[in-house]
Amino acid sequence: MSKLDVDALQAALRRFADARDWEQFHAPKNLACALSVEAAELLEIFQWLDEAQSRGIRPGHPLHECVAEEIADVQIYLLRLADQVGVDLDAAVRRKIARNEEKYPPEKARGNATKYDRL
Amino acid sequence: MSKLDVDALQAALRRFADARDWEQFHAPKNLACALSVEAAELLEIFQWLDEAQSRGIRPGHPLHECVAEEIADVQIYLLRLADQVGVDLDAAVRRKIARNEEKYPPEKARGNATKYDRL
Amino acid sequence: MSKLDVDALQAALRRFADARDWEQFHAPKNLACALSVEAAELLEIFQWLDEAQSRGIRPGHPLHECVAEEIADVQIYLLRLADQVGVDLDAAVRRKIARNEEKYPPEKARGNATKYDRL
Amino acid sequence: MSKLDVDALQAALRRFADARDWEQFHAPKNLACALSVEAAELLEIFQWLDEAQSRGIRPGHPLHECVAEEIADVQIYLLRLADQVGVDLDAAVRRKIARNEEKYPPEKARGNATKYDRL
Repeated sequence: MSKLDVDALQAALRRFADARDWEQFHAPKNLACALSVEAAELLEIFQWLDEAQSRGIRPGHPLHECVAEEIADVQIYLLRLADQVGVDLDAAVRRKIARNEEKYPPEKARGNATKYDRL
Repeated sequence: MSKLDVDALQAALRRFADARDWEQFHAPKNLACALSVEAAELLEIFQWLDEAQSRGIRPGHPLHECVAEEIADVQIYLLRLADQVGVDLDAAVRRKIARNEEKYPPEKARGNATKYDRL
Repeated sequence: MSKLDVDALQAALRRFADARDWEQFHAPKNLACALSVEAAELLEIFQWLDEAQSRGIRPGHPLHECVAEEIADVQIYLLRLADQVGVDLDAAVRRKIARNEEKYPPEKARGNATKYDRL
Repeated sequence: MSKLDVDALQAALRRFADARDWEQFHAPKNLACALSVEAAELLEIFQWLDEAQSRGIRPGHPLHECVAEEIADVQIYLLRLADQVGVDLDAAVRRKIARNEEKYPPEKARGNATKYDRL
């Protein structure tokens, strides 16, 4: 059973930053920048692949470890940012999933992903 | 104690996508796009604030709920993407933290955030 | 013949910012944030489309005007940022195209877009 | 007088892609991904700097050439994308500047950059 121990990881990341005197750089704004940068590094792996090729990136694929590492980078900055702004990650995710359930009723959303009715 | 129940959340998100026939849209490439888009929506909140103002966004601040919701969106797509590519989020994060400990020894990294020695 | 009058547009954008007292917000860092945010808004239009569908977005397509507007937003922030850091846009582009010609010789690059040999 | 010769540059980029058989990768969706990735590489240079430091990046600064190159990358993908979707860059920019003039009247926008009245 995979769980993310948010408290322990955030404490570890806090110690990591403190030991390097990086707390001064970890303003929420800067962490939001770093998060976008890491999300883009993840996207870079996929940019020239088509959807079908991207579905082939499973354990054992030559790009899998690379994807895992970029996913970890995004998760690390997200944990750090949530810590700095005092957001309870688990509560925020549960609240948002509940809101999405209301916002996109299955019968209306079925097979239609253009949330802005752009098409 | 805050924990993210990765397995349960990924199962819930899988059911959410299935119920809307959205699995067809959730190729890893598309989820990586969506993740970048959500990271940018989070960044948008901070773009005209300076670092000090961004440090003021704590519980009770008028922008706090907004930040919490965007953080949740990023986390949700990250959970979904990790599920689709078969990455164990907790293991990947722990591995990366260990690698960062080696890569940035405290004595060398102290107070210096320019990881590429660009300055 | 379509040309972008960089000097005139940058002067117009400078006046636009001055008239609103927005020069204070237009530090290069903030403009780089805004540029990433606008690039993501452009990406958002494409996120659930496949490559073939995206090739169909030509003049007359219901999403065309939307794409044009987001492209303009990216161009506007890029002009403004280049102005603030003193980069000659035309010279920088020509220099980079020349560098790319050397870096990716046609015979070696043919049909291979994985610039990092990740596959 | 600096002008960007959009037609000539787009023709050069078309020949560049053709000579490498990269046209197959240059679907608008993929170019929008690449544009976001390049915008993030530009942002990465600024992520740990504060606004004042970022204003110091002018010609002669050790990071200036680096910024110029990333700006060029964004401009190149923007030219290529505009070409692929048939957007007239100059017309789109002029239209958007006119729209912004209406949307943000100087007297109301003065010194206030929170376009969503989030604060």
